[in-house]
Parts: sequence; structure tokens; C-alpha cells
Amino acid sequence: MTEILSAAWCRRAALAAVAALAGWAPAHAQRAPKPTKAAPAPAAAANADRTDSLALRKIFDEALLRGESYDNLRYLTGTIGPRLSGSPQAQQAVEWGKATMEKAGFDRVYLQEVMVPHWVRGSKERGEIVGNKDKGIRVPVCALGGSVGTGGKLKAGVVEVHSLDEVKKLPEAAVKGKFVFYNRPFNDALIEPGTAYGGAVDQRALGAIEAAKRGAVGALVRSMTSARDDNPHTGTMRYAEGVTKVPGAALSTNAADQLSQLLKANPDLQFELEMECLTLPDEKSYNVVGEIKGSRFPQEIITVGGHLDSWDLAQGAHDDGTGVVQSMEALRLLHATGFKPERTVRAVLFMNEENGTRGGNEYARLATQNKETHLAAIESDGGGFTPRGFNIEADPATVAKIARWAPLLLPYHAADITPGHAGTDIEPLQAAVHPKALIGYDCDSQRYFDIHHTAADTFDKVNRRELELGGASMASLIYLLSKYGL
Amino acid sequence: MTEILSAAWCRRAALAAVAALAGWAPAHAQRAPKPTKAAPAPAAAANADRTDSLALRKIFDEALLRGESYDNLRYLTGTIGPRLSGSPQAQQAVEWGKATMEKAGFDRVYLQEVMVPHWVRGSKERGEIVGNKDKGIRVPVCALGGSVGTGGKLKAGVVEVHSLDEVKKLPEAAVKGKFVFYNRPFNDALIEPGTAYGGAVDQRALGAIEAAKRGAVGALVRSMTSARDDNPHTGTMRYAEGVTKVPGAALSTNAADQLSQLLKANPDLQFELEMECLTLPDEKSYNVVGEIKGSRFPQEIITVGGHLDSWDLAQGAHDDGTGVVQSMEALRLLHATGFKPERTVRAVLFMNEENGTRGGNEYARLATQNKETHLAAIESDGGGFTPRGFNIEADPATVAKIARWAPLLLPYHAADITPGHAGTDIEPLQAAVHPKALIGYDCDSQRYFDIHHTAADTFDKVNRRELELGGASMASLIYLLSKYGL
Repeated sequence: MTEILSAAWCRRAALAAVAALAGWAPAHAQRAPKPTKAAPAPAAAANADRTDSLALRKIFDEALLRGESYDNLRYLTGTIGPRLSGSPQAQQAVEWGKATMEKAGFDRVYLQEVMVPHWVRGSKERGEIVGNKDKGIRVPVCALGGSVGTGGKLKAGVVEVHSLDEVKKLPEAAVKGKFVFYNRPFNDALIEPGTAYGGAVDQRALGAIEAAKRGAVGALVRSMTSARDDNPHTGTMRYAEGVTKVPGAALSTNAADQLSQLLKANPDLQFELEMECLTLPDEKSYNVVGEIKGSRFPQEIITVGGHLDSWDLAQGAHDDGTGVVQSMEALRLLHATGFKPERTVRAVLFMNEENGTRGGNEYARLATQNKETHLAAIESDGGGFTPRGFNIEADPATVAKIARWAPLLLPYHAADITPGHAGTDIEPLQAAVHPKALIGYDCDSQRYFDIHHTAADTFDKVNRRELELGGASMASLIYLLSKYGL
Repeated sequence: MTEILSAAWCRRAALAAVAALAGWAPAHAQRAPKPTKAAPAPAAAANADRTDSLALRKIFDEALLRGESYDNLRYLTGTIGPRLSGSPQAQQAVEWGKATMEKAGFDRVYLQEVMVPHWVRGSKERGEIVGNKDKGIRVPVCALGGSVGTGGKLKAGVVEVHSLDEVKKLPEAAVKGKFVFYNRPFNDALIEPGTAYGGAVDQRALGAIEAAKRGAVGALVRSMTSARDDNPHTGTMRYAEGVTKVPGAALSTNAADQLSQLLKANPDLQFELEMECLTLPDEKSYNVVGEIKGSRFPQEIITVGGHLDSWDLAQGAHDDGTGVVQSMEALRLLHATGFKPERTVRAVLFMNEENGTRGGNEYARLATQNKETHLAAIESDGGGFTPRGFNIEADPATVAKIARWAPLLLPYHAADITPGHAGTDIEPLQAAVHPKALIGYDCDSQRYFDIHHTAADTFDKVNRRELELGGASMASLIYLLSKYGL
């Protein structure tokens, strides 16, 4: 693209036109005729709309011109780095989160103590395809989170499958003493990579259990991504009571393709796995909470959060450093633009989303114990890419209520208000204190699983403007929730 | 994000629900009740909708599972590389485009000859801030496209301005014999980076003219981007009849900030610029055209295109390798899914968009000469990022007609149909043959100007899925245009 672009590039007016054309504009967003003394009600509605529209514009100005998310993320990912639950870096992240929110001048900043799992990868992690040749082929592997180690070198044959069911149906002799190699790829035809992830991740989560039930020595799992590359993707795996705990490892997609191809030529090849990972006793850790007190309904709480922990391989930039800095920023944006929320607004940096959700559970437990009233909770845990809108878990009337604000979010491309999964950390609130809506921040997701849970989830993958637009979108929704309730 | 995701991640149903809720669903997209013999008409409408919906799904399946855009782009950017008009690489790109479309089995592939400018950068390009110190400070600069060279080293004082108007108002003594340094940044508060570009690019396009009018020796221009980095951004600049041609160069944003800061401390500092660029005689080149003949209305033409040339510094991945491969892919997708277009569909790889639009002008001239009827033209020249929809230049009734197809595009997040700038290469068609609509493919644009016209516009910045989704979106719109007309 070249040259001077016409004002036609300015799409805001255009978007508003389409909203009108599409019948999207709800009553309060319609421009009323010029107010007259005879018609105070429409004038009031128009003024409310104008006030909201200007308030959102102020929030986005602040984010785009003086936003702090990007610099905060640089510190969290670069200076602190990977921060798996129980690690010294997770503790540093807690202290940094608390200090950052204290400096931002919120009404109250505090910690919620919670015991978390403490799994460590160890220093050695090695995978090798051993065929007929003298020399094996080293391939990129990593232990799945929570896996037991191999206790030295573990060498065995390999049986390839594409589902948990397939393992159950195999004769025990075909599995016993071998690695089960789960190689079902993402369904690339799906538009949402998250749906493809949901359709493949049972292999990683439950693969070692089903393998062990049939006498396998371990589970090798194709990495959870559409990308074809050399990055193994870690992620949590489970064990079951009464079933032998066998090691679970992820292979990069290239390695999985290679192993599959070699197995076709030589079904008797072996795989040698060596992992020193182990689970240590639980550690004390914390959720970090920052709060702005509501001016009219202080007892009604709106939560916004992301998770402070990350996998140990990664800087945890998109998962979920972006959610952490956006949540803090959402409150800072309200504060900096002079908005005094009618309801109490809380930024929560949850601990241990990745391998336990202990922080999310504890937050919900305390909400019950303290008899809190929760209006809504927003979570950002799908990356820090360009906003699309919000996924809502609520009854249809409440979804429709939130969708009426779409025209206000349309100029920012954050107006896609749809029913959908909100988030893992806020989920426990539902049973505990029944907020009217759980809300997931929704952004463009095409790149997310390329780097998810890998060493490639680094700061440089995050675009400053995309990140700040997300924080501003969340702040805007909080503004509306706080002002109008649900 | 962790763990098994619920089917709630599948947003397609949700999106359809919101479309209905928003009153978006037009008559032909509403699900009719089960067809009965008594009510053939609604059944026919429902069937048409189902047919279209399935056709689009087939197009997206083909793109996501067997798409060729990404591999084509790898070749164009990596093996051929930068391909400024008149260069040997531009000629290679022409041959490659022709061969690729011939292999794809379209009905007809041909070239349209056109003479193009031939500007070359030369081997030396150097900028240095010279203050009081013995040693100057080297800063990243590049010649603007079309600039004259400096004829050896050109050393002069610097006057900083923020607009063309400011130059006009300065006393001639303040400008004469100096470099005019245009340093107005992007307005970062704008949501569309393209709008910010439009608001700043007059400095690059016209800066040398206004500087020369006041006796300046050259123009130094802040790079056209919101990013703060060391990449200078080239791009076209103009000269005017009767005004001395002085050299124009871009400074990286970091260099511009540094120069501005040093000028404040020392207004007498000098800048030394050395550039060997020059304009050679025009060269013969070509648009490349691939065509599928319409089955019912062969005389009605739908064009889809991108530009084959790129700036010389860049691989031209997002600008506009993505538009080129998407345009060819759009036809291939229709072909591969067995769709026989009712109207004639043409993929056009335009030559010389960056510094002359000679290809676009020639395409329009030939359309007139051949008395062609053009229904619509689509251009992709805003990068190969995740689709949003289409920008339409047409009368409001036609825009509304196209917007009625939004529900069919909604599952693919390509339903944002709005009035807006369509594209530089198809623009000349308007005056020539009056197509009913000029249409710009619209995608997420937050990252585009970070790399635009720089050496960083490389293949690795393009995401496979984002790129293929774009080609499928364009193919889908062509399917609908071809089937229903306008």
C-alpha cells in the first residue's frame, strides 16, 4: 500500500452506519433529536449515550497514548521470566504485582494465601528415536506438566494411536511395555484454533492414564498446535487413583510427523526417553488483589483477572502475562480517566491456573466465606492480540443486555458479544456466589496456539497496540457494568 | 490457558445467534420452516441459503486444509525477493505469476504490457548527525522512492518542522541551505493505523517539494509508523514541475527522536547525507491476468487483485505478496471446489502500484478500449492478517446489498462490510468502466505499519492460517458476486 490515503480509511463513522443499518443500535445508543424542554427523557438518554461514548474514547486515548501494559509486560516476561507455581519467579511475580498496583494508587491491595503444587522439570530432558541404525535420532521433547520422571533412560517400542478410545480397543499385548504415541493432529478446518485445541487436548490430559491402564511404560503426545515446527508444547496432564503413574512427554509436531513416518517403515523401532522431572511438596503462594471501592454500591463486586503463573519453558507472554497486565491496566485506566466506579472493581492476579487452578478456587472460596456479592467477572486468558469482543456465560437475557452495549464498542472492533467460554480462573465463582455473568475477553486467536506453552511464548510476539487495545476494551466493559449493572 | 476446553469455544452457533439478535439476518439467510409442498418459495430460499453456506464452508475447508497461498508466498518473498518496478526480480515475479496461474488450470492466462518507472537505490546510503563532537552519529536512513541522489556527501544544518504549512510560514533564511526535517509522528490515538498513516504521509509525499520551494537542500522525514525502532521506512515521494529536485530520505523513528532531541540542545548541528539513488529510463513490464470464463454472463467481469511489485528494501511479504497470492488462490479455491462462476472472474497481479500505479491505469485503459463490462473489483493491499471483512466504495444501496451477505461471512469473522477505501490499483476502473462496486479486502491492521516499506516486511511475519483465511474470504465474496450479481 502506498501514497496518501483518503479520509475513507477512517472507519468509525462507517461502522456506526453499519450498526444502524444492521439494526444493532439499541434505544440508548440512538441519537435523540435535539433536546427540548418538552422532551426531557430522550434528551437524557442521548446525553447518557454521549457521556458513555466520550468516556470510552478517553479510556482508549489513555491506553494508546500513555498505556502501561506493554512496559509492565516487558518487566514480567523479561526481568522475572518463567514463573511456574511454586518457583522463586512466581514469588517474585507476586511481589511485583502487589508493588505495581500499590504504586497505581488503588484503594486497597492485598494478597490471598494459597498452597500450590510445586512441580519441577529437572535439568535433563531427552528424546531419541532408535531404529536399526547405530545412531539414534534426537528429537525435541519436553515433559508434560505434572509428569513423573523416567528414572534414568527409558527405552521401549512405540505404538501409534489417534485417540484414547483406540488405546482401549487395542489388544493388551500391542501396548504392554511400550510407549503409546498419541498423534491426532488439530483439525485445521476449524475457524477457531481454540476449538481445535479442545478437540485434541484429551490426548495430553488423559493419555498417560489410558496408556498405563493397558500396561504401557509412558505416553508420547503430539504437541497441541497447528504449526509445523520444532517447539514441543508442554501443558498439564493427569494421573488417576489406582493407575500406575507413567511419564508423559510432548513431541514437537515435526518430531511427531517424523516418528510416525519412521514407524511405518519400521514398526519395531524404539524410543528412548529421559526426564528428571518430579513433584515436590506444595508451596505457599498468593493471589494478588487490587481494588477500587464502589461509590454507590460498594458491596457489588466486578472482578477482572488473568493468571500470574506460567509454564516453566516460557516467558508466559501471551499465556498469560498479557491478561495480568491488562487486568491491572483496566483499573488504572478507570483511575487515570477520573472515573469513580459505582460498584467495587477488583483486579485479580490468579496463581496456579496452569496446573491446579488453586488460586481460582481459593478466590471463590473466600468470596463465599466473606458473603460477597459478585455482579460479574471478566477473565483475559486467550492472548493479547487484537480485540474482537467478549464471550459471555450467562442467561440469554443477560447476554442480550451486554450485547446492547455493542455499538459503544464497535468503533474499537470489540463489539463481538457472544455466548461462550469465559475462563478457568473465574469459573469456580459460578457455583460459589452466582455472579450474573462470567465474561471472557475475546481476541484474535489465529496465532495463539503457535506458541502456547512453548519457549517461543515471548515478549516480542506481543504487539504494543494490540495489547493496549485489549486493556482498554476490558476497562470499557467494566465502566458500563459498573455504571449500569446487570 | 490450560486444560480441556468445552464445546463453548465453538463460536459458530453463537455468532449466528448474535446475528439474529442484532437483526442482521436478511431474508435469504433466515432458516425457513421444513419445506412442504404447499410452501415452495420459502423452501427455495432456505435451500439457496443452505447451498451458499455449504459452498463457503467448502471454500474455507479447501483453504485451511490444502491452501496454496502460504507456499506461493514463501517462493515469491524468499526465492524471488524484493521486486521494485523495472528490476530483474519484478520480471521474475511476472514469469512466476504467469506460470503459477497456468499450472492452476484457469481458462486463460495472459500479460498486459506496460512501461514502468525504473528507480534504483544505488549501493551507498548513509546518514550522520554532526554536532560539536569530533565523531558524528550514524543513524539509520534510506532514500525515499524516486528521490534524486545527493551527488556525494551533502552536509547542512537542520530545521525541524511538524507540517508542510510550517515550512511555508518559516522565514526563508531559516530554511535556505538547510535540510527540512519533518517530524510529525503518527496520531497513536487513532484506532486504525491506516488513518494515522493518512494523516502523516503528506510529509513524505510532498515534503521535498515544499522544502525546495524555500531553498532547502533536502528533506529528512520521520518514518511512517507508530513503532519505535531502527527501521527506516521508504515509500514514494513526488517532485513538482519548476521546483528544484532535492533529495528526500526517511529516518527511523528512533533516529528522528534522537535528532530532535540533539537539535534542542544544539540548533546549529548539521546532518550529512549521502545517497546514490537515481532514476533510469522506463522499463517494459507487465500485469499478469488469470481468468475463469463466466458460464452465464461471460461478459460481466469480477476482478480480484494485488500488486506484484514491492519496495526494494523489503521482501514485500505483507505489501503486497499476500494480496498477490490471495488473489490467485481465490480463483484456485473456486476451481478446486468445483464452482463454475456465472460471471467471468479475473485474478490480476498489478505491476507498479508502489511508485506509479502504471499497471492499474493500464488495466483500466484496456477495459475501456475493449469495451468491457465490470461488475465489481476486489483488491487486497492492506496485509495478510486475520480477516475482518470488506471496505466498499459504492452507492449506499449497493453497500447494503453486499452487507446482506454478512451472515454468510460471520462464521469466518469476515462480516464487517463497511463503506471505505477499496484500493489504489482498482481505483482507475471507476472512471473508466464504472463497476458497481470497488471492494477492499479488510483485515486486522494493527501490525501492518510496524513493517510497511521496511526490510522487516518478511515472510516470517505472515501467519499461515491468517493468510489462507483471507484468500477464502475473498473467494467467498466472489462466489456470491458471481452468483447473484449486484
